[in-house]
Amino acid sequence: MHASQLDPDGLQPPTAAPTPALRRLTVGVVGPGRVGSALLEQLRAARERLRREQHIDLHLRVVADSRRMWLDSDDDALNARLGGAQIWRPSSLDDVAACLHGAPGAVIVDCSASEAVAARYADWLAAGLHVVTPNKLAPSGPLPHWRALQNLARTQRVQLRYEATVGAGLPVVQTLRDLLDTGDELIALEGMLSGTLAWLCYAYDGQRPFSELVRQAHELGYTEPDPRADLDGLDVARKLVILARESGRGLSLDDVSVQSLVPDSLRHVDREHFMNHLHLLDAPMAALHAKATAEGAVLRHIGRLDADGRARVGLVALPAEHGFAQARGADNIVQFHTRRYADTPLRVQGPGAGPDVTAGGVFTDLLRVAAEARA
Amino acid sequence: MHASQLDPDGLQPPTAAPTPALRRLTVGVVGPGRVGSALLEQLRAARERLRREQHIDLHLRVVADSRRMWLDSDDDALNARLGGAQIWRPSSLDDVAACLHGAPGAVIVDCSASEAVAARYADWLAAGLHVVTPNKLAPSGPLPHWRALQNLARTQRVQLRYEATVGAGLPVVQTLRDLLDTGDELIALEGMLSGTLAWLCYAYDGQRPFSELVRQAHELGYTEPDPRADLDGLDVARKLVILARESGRGLSLDDVSVQSLVPDSLRHVDREHFMNHLHLLDAPMAALHAKATAEGAVLRHIGRLDADGRARVGLVALPAEHGFAQARGADNIVQFHTRRYADTPLRVQGPGAGPDVTAGGVFTDLLRVAAEARA
Repeated sequence: MHASQLDPDGLQPPTAAPTPALRRLTVGVVGPGRVGSALLEQLRAARERLRREQHIDLHLRVVADSRRMWLDSDDDALNARLGGAQIWRPSSLDDVAACLHGAPGAVIVDCSASEAVAARYADWLAAGLHVVTPNKLAPSGPLPHWRALQNLARTQRVQLRYEATVGAGLPVVQTLRDLLDTGDELIALEGMLSGTLAWLCYAYDGQRPFSELVRQAHELGYTEPDPRADLDGLDVARKLVILARESGRGLSLDDVSVQSLVPDSLRHVDREHFMNHLHLLDAPMAALHAKATAEGAVLRHIGRLDADGRARVGLVALPAEHGFAQARGADNIVQFHTRRYADTPLRVQGPGAGPDVTAGGVFTDLLRVAAEARA
Repeated sequence: MHASQLDPDGLQPPTAAPTPALRRLTVGVVGPGRVGSALLEQLRAARERLRREQHIDLHLRVVADSRRMWLDSDDDALNARLGGAQIWRPSSLDDVAACLHGAPGAVIVDCSASEAVAARYADWLAAGLHVVTPNKLAPSGPLPHWRALQNLARTQRVQLRYEATVGAGLPVVQTLRDLLDTGDELIALEGMLSGTLAWLCYAYDGQRPFSELVRQAHELGYTEPDPRADLDGLDVARKLVILARESGRGLSLDDVSVQSLVPDSLRHVDREHFMNHLHLLDAPMAALHAKATAEGAVLRHIGRLDADGRARVGLVALPAEHGFAQARGADNIVQFHTRRYADTPLRVQGPGAGPDVTAGGVFTDLLRVAAEARA
């Protein structure tokens, strides 16, 4: 211990240690849409590097969409049963799980936005599979079910990870987790949790009709196919629920006070009817904008979890010097007010949507699974 | 796999799985100054919760400052040798390592700012101890030595973690690591990496002399005991080197172009002489401020790693709408421009100094060690 363990040039460790064993990660991806496809590309590109630098042997064994599935099996018994590796078959979520079952570091990635897929997490966790997902449905769904899933993961000693459900690839869930795990307390949080709504609020100057901006965002593909899925605030409310639950608050979607930008008269009409009546959004927005401007404030769409436990989503008039007022474009922002970060919050900011960054968040979760899973 | 694994109320998993084994973490803390003391308090407060919720058995075995050390041994053989548990002894870094050696999940936390302690990392890693530190000296020190330390950690299968060296408890190093590990590429980064310099730039309006602000910050304890340790930009340069190295760039402190705010004539005088001649800082700052103001810009102290590999630290005139221009108070900010975050950077912002948040960053590293260490 006393002699220096480095040679004078500091270039070589003195003792040759055994090469670390490879950590196997056997991955199944369900739902290869835009995010799933980006993930598959990232996994493919990273595979050799991960093996070389991190001793992670990442093996993609199955990819399934709603119609068919692709298997790459190096399990001889499974090959024999299925009739050879790398085959296409009709899709079946049971088969996806079955061909991961028992594999080392077996993890299912749900890149769908499907309730039917999310409904399988319990089976998968119970079968000893890790689950990673950017799908908000389960973590913002019925609270008893979500708590049961988290308990199941704990008792089965598998991981259930969902970093990309909030802010896509931005480090939001993990940052909150780390604060709490190290003994900090969440007092309140606020966020601009929708890039679409952030951009609409940023671009809206009270002159050009709000409906025109919505139409433009829709045409550029910046909104959901039905823009009401952005404008109704529910997606932001789901993210708020996920963060609230992470902090130990037993919040459900019903507990969030959500201000929708969709007029009541357009809530239940078909999409075409809605798109043809977008101008009905204009007068209410113009009134809010005029009021904010008169106060020297700007309109922003915010999700807030207050110190008293209230959760709210909607438009807020913020003073022009507020950090959120100054954000440009479509950035997501999350601010954590904690006991340690009491005077000034901890803030994470950046693009919070898009296939590449979302897939990056999912991939980060996969690496955490690899790091933490016992061999 | 077909039947639901949850009961109808979704409250209980159907099968009782064995309680996960405890992961032991045996901790030694060197340098219980302000950060070390905050860490000890955080560890003490978290111990029971970590055992209950995360099955981490965190055991503090030794604390040492430069004069004496405190041992809490539950190792009977060691107790017999040392003459009983919980004893005070004259401090010895050899003894600190010796009484951690062989313990499960043994980790030394260096909360000193000491070269002598940093010089021991190689011995400790070679002896199979994990090392966690907020001390910048090793990761920003001579490049061959740092690379050798990282190699040593890899071959010895132990962890060397230093999240709190940049931005204290802000998730900076881990965020960069996650981007790179998932295949993203760092193109450039820029940061306000000194809370002290951020505050001085923010508060300086060209009217009140700059030296008065420095004196005020010094009296409030916001600067180092010798404010030149902030004003010379070297601390920011060290953080820039750490982030550059994390991204694979072989940067050394000598490669960073650093603009010091300390006039040459005051560089080598004693502290009292420096404090008595603070007014010599005023004219250069006033000139820079006037020039920036004339351009509609504001002065900020920035560390930058450019796409062409250049690393620079100093004052920059930023347009008023720049995100850094709008930051208030003493916030640290880091912006990562990557292939995925090309149009808009990923930004982390918040207080980047102080015992509690720094200790929180160290604690996060400890939890990563616990999570990733093989039992």
